Amino acid sequence: MNKVGIIGYGITPFTREDLKIESILLKSAKTLFQNNPNIDRNDIDAVLVSTNNNSKYLSPILSEMTGIQPKIAHSIESLCNSGTNSIVSAYSYIASGLADMVLVTGAERYDSPGQILQWDNSRGEFKHPIFWASIFTKSYKREYSISDKQLALVSVKNHKQAKENPNALSDKTYSIQDVINSKRLTDDLRLLDCSRPCTGSASIILASEEMIKKITDMPVWITGIGQKTTSAGFTKNASFDSMESTRLAGQAALKMANKHTEDIDVVEIHDAFSVCEPMALESLGFSNNGHGMNIIKEAYETNNFKINPRGGLIGSGHPLGATGIAQTIEITQQLQSKADQRQVDDVQVGLVHNISAAATSSTVLVLEK
Amino acid sequence: MNKVGIIGYGITPFTREDLKIESILLKSAKTLFQNNPNIDRNDIDAVLVSTNNNSKYLSPILSEMTGIQPKIAHSIESLCNSGTNSIVSAYSYIASGLADMVLVTGAERYDSPGQILQWDNSRGEFKHPIFWASIFTKSYKREYSISDKQLALVSVKNHKQAKENPNALSDKTYSIQDVINSKRLTDDLRLLDCSRPCTGSASIILASEEMIKKITDMPVWITGIGQKTTSAGFTKNASFDSMESTRLAGQAALKMANKHTEDIDVVEIHDAFSVCEPMALESLGFSNNGHGMNIIKEAYETNNFKINPRGGLIGSGHPLGATGIAQTIEITQQLQSKADQRQVDDVQVGLVHNISAAATSSTVLVLEK
Repeated sequence: MNKVGIIGYGITPFTREDLKIESILLKSAKTLFQNNPNIDRNDIDAVLVSTNNNSKYLSPILSEMTGIQPKIAHSIESLCNSGTNSIVSAYSYIASGLADMVLVTGAERYDSPGQILQWDNSRGEFKHPIFWASIFTKSYKREYSISDKQLALVSVKNHKQAKENPNALSDKTYSIQDVINSKRLTDDLRLLDCSRPCTGSASIILASEEMIKKITDMPVWITGIGQKTTSAGFTKNASFDSMESTRLAGQAALKMANKHTEDIDVVEIHDAFSVCEPMALESLGFSNNGHGMNIIKEAYETNNFKINPRGGLIGSGHPLGATGIAQTIEITQQLQSKADQRQVDDVQVGLVHNISAAATSSTVLVLEK
Repeated sequence: MNKVGIIGYGITPFTREDLKIESILLKSAKTLFQNNPNIDRNDIDAVLVSTNNNSKYLSPILSEMTGIQPKIAHSIESLCNSGTNSIVSAYSYIASGLADMVLVTGAERYDSPGQILQWDNSRGEFKHPIFWASIFTKSYKREYSISDKQLALVSVKNHKQAKENPNALSDKTYSIQDVINSKRLTDDLRLLDCSRPCTGSASIILASEEMIKKITDMPVWITGIGQKTTSAGFTKNASFDSMESTRLAGQAALKMANKHTEDIDVVEIHDAFSVCEPMALESLGFSNNGHGMNIIKEAYETNNFKINPRGGLIGSGHPLGATGIAQTIEITQQLQSKADQRQVDDVQVGLVHNISAAATSSTVLVLEK
């Protein structure tokens, strides 16, 4: 199997702008080519578009706008983890030898149709993600005697960290009290516990080892991949206070990379809602069940940016198809020591965690220098 | 690179039924598992859904309905060649070692949103495919002095062949005069020159060589893959009387398989409209430019079923996301001598040709016993 690495990226600010999906896609792809003038578009064998947008044929459209005539060109959708699904697909095209260089661009509008879970009749009338998040939160708090105030720290930390991310949707910081006092959406969920849908774009280029040698001496290697789908409807989750698909994907990714949780220096966690951050950290094995908030608290108090350095989904915003790619770009920047004010010390190994639909699906990636 | 083969398939009749996309997907997947009771669903690492439908998260939904908990699960869209794009993606997951067995299911409703080419402003108000097909037809007829009557043979042959395909939308046969007398849609296009959108489903299972050994002694190997996207808007096509993306994809596929056109015993050609069949045969190198109708005529007169045995898109119907998979199933059946009344003699090598959007994209696959 060919080794696969990341050789370039482009990301633009996440906003609430009302733009056409084609324009959103182009934004980060253009930035990518500006950042990497040594990448020859003729070397790009595949263009994959990650989105929940209903427009068709977006990969050929993006290809034409950027002057690429790829062999492989298609869109990929898997709701909120479309981005990492696209990265894994790009990986497979390269590792199999069908492609040497692949552009992956994720883009979404603030009004993405991927936000409403039409298919899940087990939800009754409650098709918006806040309903599963509310059930998760209630269940997690009860099981581990965690308070709303404790969970609010996730939002406080991630908004604080997003302040150092020039592409984040949020530029405000909040106190625990601000989170608690923010608009109550359900019994267990406040507005500031939720990531916000937004308009955003993120592009990344992956390449084979041979191609990488010609282009950069600072690649970031994808050394671990784990994915799992346990069901399509969240009421079939084995538990509402842990993430089974994350546990399985995490194990697989660490095994493939031959790493343990202690080896991981920085993580991007899919904090669609506050409760997701400790739950995911626990399911990934970074702490025992019910103790995820301890490591979040330590990270916050020591100001170490190790958990969701770019501000997570809560601070950065959540443009569905772009999120997994933006997470991967953050870990790439951390590994290349290019994360400016967000930089974690001495990063050798990083991890990306990206879920869909109440963690019925998870992708976990391990990235290394 | 691991060898990749086809070990099972399921296909159900193409109709005009008004069903939910989830039900359509399930139809052929269910048939696949009925046809292949020895396939263990626990061995399926990936489930890829090929469709232009706007519903999200269809791969986890199909997985849940069929009792699969895959690692990899996402949808793939590239308009009319979504099906072969999904097969190539499945190939790459297996060849790269990320998966050992992949289910690919394509499904579409008769009212697919992939039929209207919203993005292509170069078409002005003419966003329906009949407009590019009309321009292609006029251009092809003028360039090579071909008459409407000559082209009508494509529809006559394919309807005749569809009569022997139990899953085809059409069960009628037509004379040249019937085609010429059918409703005139544009100056150069009659109703019977066009494939019809329909509701349809087709599923296929691909596996690694190691896995195949445990399951079947009649696999069909994918030995050649070629893909190319030249643009997103058909007015940028280099010519309106040949298919440049098909020429490049065909060359690449034959090269990878180490085969020449003379080695190919049976072909599935993307005859979205009559003119596409001779044009594609020429661009693939089966005849000189302008002479494609000669081999079509010979096939018809000798009743040899070598070109579009299942009746092509014109005879079988065109459920966008399912078409490329249905084509691949037909060639698989031909290679396994299971094509009943459609069986071509002594088939050793077959070829699938699947295009999108006025042949701005093409996929070509070479399949062997």
